[in-house]
Amino acid sequence: MTSNLAPDNTLVQPLLTDLYQISMAYAYWKADKINDHAVFDLFFRKNPFGGEFTFFAGLEQCIKFLASFHYTDSDINYLRETMPKCTDEEFFIFLKSVTAKDISLYAIEEGTVVFPRVPLMRIEGPLIVVQLLETTFLTLVNFASLMTTNAVRYRMAAGDKISLMEFGLRRAQGPDGGLSASKYSYIGGFNGTSNVLAGKMFNIPVKGTHAHAFINSFTGFEELKSKMLKRYDSSESEDLLAKSIEWRKKIAPLLKCSVDQASDGELAALISFAIAFPQNFVALIDTYDVSRSGLLNFSAVALALNDLGYKAMGIRIDSGDLAYLSEIARKLFIRIADDFSVPWFADLMIVASNDINEETIWSLNEQNHKINCFGIGTNLVTCQKQPALGCVYKLVELNKSPRVKLSQDANKMTMPGRKDVYRLYGSDGYALCDLLQRSCEPPPEVLTRVLCRHPVNPVKRAHATPSKVESLLKLFWKDGCVCMPHEDWASIEVIRNRVRSSLLTLRQDHKRNLNPTPYKVSVSDNLFGYINDLWMQNAPIGDLS
Amino acid sequence: MTSNLAPDNTLVQPLLTDLYQISMAYAYWKADKINDHAVFDLFFRKNPFGGEFTFFAGLEQCIKFLASFHYTDSDINYLRETMPKCTDEEFFIFLKSVTAKDISLYAIEEGTVVFPRVPLMRIEGPLIVVQLLETTFLTLVNFASLMTTNAVRYRMAAGDKISLMEFGLRRAQGPDGGLSASKYSYIGGFNGTSNVLAGKMFNIPVKGTHAHAFINSFTGFEELKSKMLKRYDSSESEDLLAKSIEWRKKIAPLLKCSVDQASDGELAALISFAIAFPQNFVALIDTYDVSRSGLLNFSAVALALNDLGYKAMGIRIDSGDLAYLSEIARKLFIRIADDFSVPWFADLMIVASNDINEETIWSLNEQNHKINCFGIGTNLVTCQKQPALGCVYKLVELNKSPRVKLSQDANKMTMPGRKDVYRLYGSDGYALCDLLQRSCEPPPEVLTRVLCRHPVNPVKRAHATPSKVESLLKLFWKDGCVCMPHEDWASIEVIRNRVRSSLLTLRQDHKRNLNPTPYKVSVSDNLFGYINDLWMQNAPIGDLS
Repeated sequence: MTSNLAPDNTLVQPLLTDLYQISMAYAYWKADKINDHAVFDLFFRKNPFGGEFTFFAGLEQCIKFLASFHYTDSDINYLRETMPKCTDEEFFIFLKSVTAKDISLYAIEEGTVVFPRVPLMRIEGPLIVVQLLETTFLTLVNFASLMTTNAVRYRMAAGDKISLMEFGLRRAQGPDGGLSASKYSYIGGFNGTSNVLAGKMFNIPVKGTHAHAFINSFTGFEELKSKMLKRYDSSESEDLLAKSIEWRKKIAPLLKCSVDQASDGELAALISFAIAFPQNFVALIDTYDVSRSGLLNFSAVALALNDLGYKAMGIRIDSGDLAYLSEIARKLFIRIADDFSVPWFADLMIVASNDINEETIWSLNEQNHKINCFGIGTNLVTCQKQPALGCVYKLVELNKSPRVKLSQDANKMTMPGRKDVYRLYGSDGYALCDLLQRSCEPPPEVLTRVLCRHPVNPVKRAHATPSKVESLLKLFWKDGCVCMPHEDWASIEVIRNRVRSSLLTLRQDHKRNLNPTPYKVSVSDNLFGYINDLWMQNAPIGDLS
Repeated sequence: MTSNLAPDNTLVQPLLTDLYQISMAYAYWKADKINDHAVFDLFFRKNPFGGEFTFFAGLEQCIKFLASFHYTDSDINYLRETMPKCTDEEFFIFLKSVTAKDISLYAIEEGTVVFPRVPLMRIEGPLIVVQLLETTFLTLVNFASLMTTNAVRYRMAAGDKISLMEFGLRRAQGPDGGLSASKYSYIGGFNGTSNVLAGKMFNIPVKGTHAHAFINSFTGFEELKSKMLKRYDSSESEDLLAKSIEWRKKIAPLLKCSVDQASDGELAALISFAIAFPQNFVALIDTYDVSRSGLLNFSAVALALNDLGYKAMGIRIDSGDLAYLSEIARKLFIRIADDFSVPWFADLMIVASNDINEETIWSLNEQNHKINCFGIGTNLVTCQKQPALGCVYKLVELNKSPRVKLSQDANKMTMPGRKDVYRLYGSDGYALCDLLQRSCEPPPEVLTRVLCRHPVNPVKRAHATPSKVESLLKLFWKDGCVCMPHEDWASIEVIRNRVRSSLLTLRQDHKRNLNPTPYKVSVSDNLFGYINDLWMQNAPIGDLS
């Protein structure tokens, strides 16, 4: 095992689990079930955010967890103190020897679009060991998949031309809530993050300008200790302050405001920032007043920079009516481009970043905003619309015999048996449905009619004649080794591209924002009979009394 | 610095920040602001969850972060690659020398009840360094405070007699979303967690029984390889299966059901679990059917255990109508206690755990449930009702001169200047209001009338004559050292007790669930004039056109 198989986060370790997993392991051990062979499915029951799709993510972290899975002496000592006094000492010796070498992990490729009740992962091996993985796997998959799905939804709302930046670290649910948000929003289609550690750890683009505090740290020109900037094309320095003040006078009439309404402290701050970042100048313009101060000061500095051979990048607006302010800004930039013959000014970047969520973006679209980039924090990274995905991990087969969990709640019943999953595609390239079969059945064949049944309702049936059949569950881990080329499961870029191409296979009506059509997850005729027989056999008959 | 000053999480490091903090640091450095002295306030603007109070948490982690604050060579190398090519090399040399030794950190004690606009932390020192701490501090305080507040609300809903367990790791927002949830829900008044790593790291109680998979792993008696259990008081073993089957026959009539409706697989599983945990037997009873199978099988095993000298602990119900099922269970336990002279049976623990939130608890209370313990996951740990707290970090003073941030949004304006915070208490021991003053003002005195003004509305004024005055902001870090006894800021138990005692100082009308009264946060007359003058000076006058 190479060092790049270590989990990203040192907290991802075998004790990151629920005590009852370990209690169960002990009870299995005590009951002499040490050689029992189990099959567990990991799946969810409902798509998040009121949508009809989900993106599977977190697999890479699960594989890394498997690769490093073992209990340290310190873990064992802690468990010895924590479990009941009468716990057999032999159990701890057994636990010390546990690794993932006898585990087989089948999974859908990370970044694939997935649907309720489809096993995202099928974990096979010694009952005790498979059981011990439950909580950690769920922790690693649930938030990663939720976050990726959320990011995809934001991308769909914003369209392909808008740049999306994740700005949420400060509001995230803890440090790796923030890091996971950066990573999985990039995977889901964001362009980058403001989170520096995420950039370093995952090699994703990091962007950022400045905050209001920077503007507030200047009150006037007298605080500008340095105002000279070298020209881009020579070593000659010029006075950026003097030039900016000149430009401010020229532009004020375009904004129908007077120079004395604009904050000198703000201008000083922007000049100072431009001197530090002459080629990457992005200015926050709402510290005092966007239209009477920020826009004027920014444009003045940007034009002064232009005199010295530099192109400013743009502005950020962090409060107020974003559609309206972006329109004012764009109009001014176009006017300046025309009036002063600086054509690139018309295309300056306008970043908006105040408490944006999916609905805000749809609404801004309707108002015909002029924003090029959204910086999105809180609502993205905490998945405010639905902060948890409900993946579960269920025993479906033990020693080759199917296991079924019934429940007071019908939708909590599980589909017993070892199953395979096939995605059937139509001739237009879109996915038609997912088909679950018993593993003992032959796979469906291309251009051959197959009966797809609703898992519960016997009346709901459909025939499909797929143009393409894809077997979704692939073997990722066996005999203590990863069975896939490293890049396929561990490259963020590969996974990110998979999200994009997988989304393209989904028909528009499944993706639309309002009342999307559910995607069909069906079972083979054989599996239908098998499941329903087992449900009937195991459910007690009630008494009406 | 001792090793116990390391952050809990290795991800808590200086690069866990937004790039724009580092961009600003560079611009400050470039503008020769290296000796500027800044004061920043960390505060929030609105209480979460529709309530009128918040609990401050995360301070211990901030202090540990300060103690370890420095950039490694690897960090510097990454920043060198990431920042614009023209960034001065000298800056990186400067950055390498940065530590928190010149920072002073004043804060409210962790675990104190706090309110909007009150500085929870006041951070003073070199502008560049204070700025570099922003995002990490916010990340550490926001979720910790939100989570603690959420836990307090669940505790208030459940009352003091109910045991509350945090079960949310699998649905948390990443591994330390889960760990933080365990830690801060314990601080907020929970009794423990199922998260083993949290137990190990924070020394908090860990509990757990088993999941449905354990029940499903047995289909009948023939799978019970071992059915013998030693008596508690001797080394003699008895057949727990035979005894349980006997008891099941005797109890079935009490439940008006027949033995053949109960699952033999479930009974086998419970016997197996009881053999592993004879002194800690808690059984999940909803795998098949609570009233026709689970309750019957549990009671049979519990009575068999009783024959051998062991007392079972109780049951867990994870689906269905929790109030109704708990009532059926309690009735049965009382009936068994009477009929078979096992009085302790009446008090068996009933744990409920299906998707519980604050509202569910209020509703279960109305239905007069018979539950002793709630196991709470998703809704608690992700703070589903409001998944983020909006703490901000604002510059209020630079080089002894006040700084003010105006905004298009009135509620985003900041209160300028270095301020102190006093909590005034009435003669009944309840907190009357928080009073913010300029640091240059003398503190309010006990039994002396003080004018408390609304920060914005000039008409809203009140006199208070406090029986007790508490200065809330205390110095925790200065000159590179912690200035408080270790236990006061680093002991989870001390912080947990502080939450409880702090909550008692809050009047009931501020705490109630429906339409709570806002707690008053006021400013001194002097601060009122100071703030409003500064706001007026800095806000541009608009033109109606």
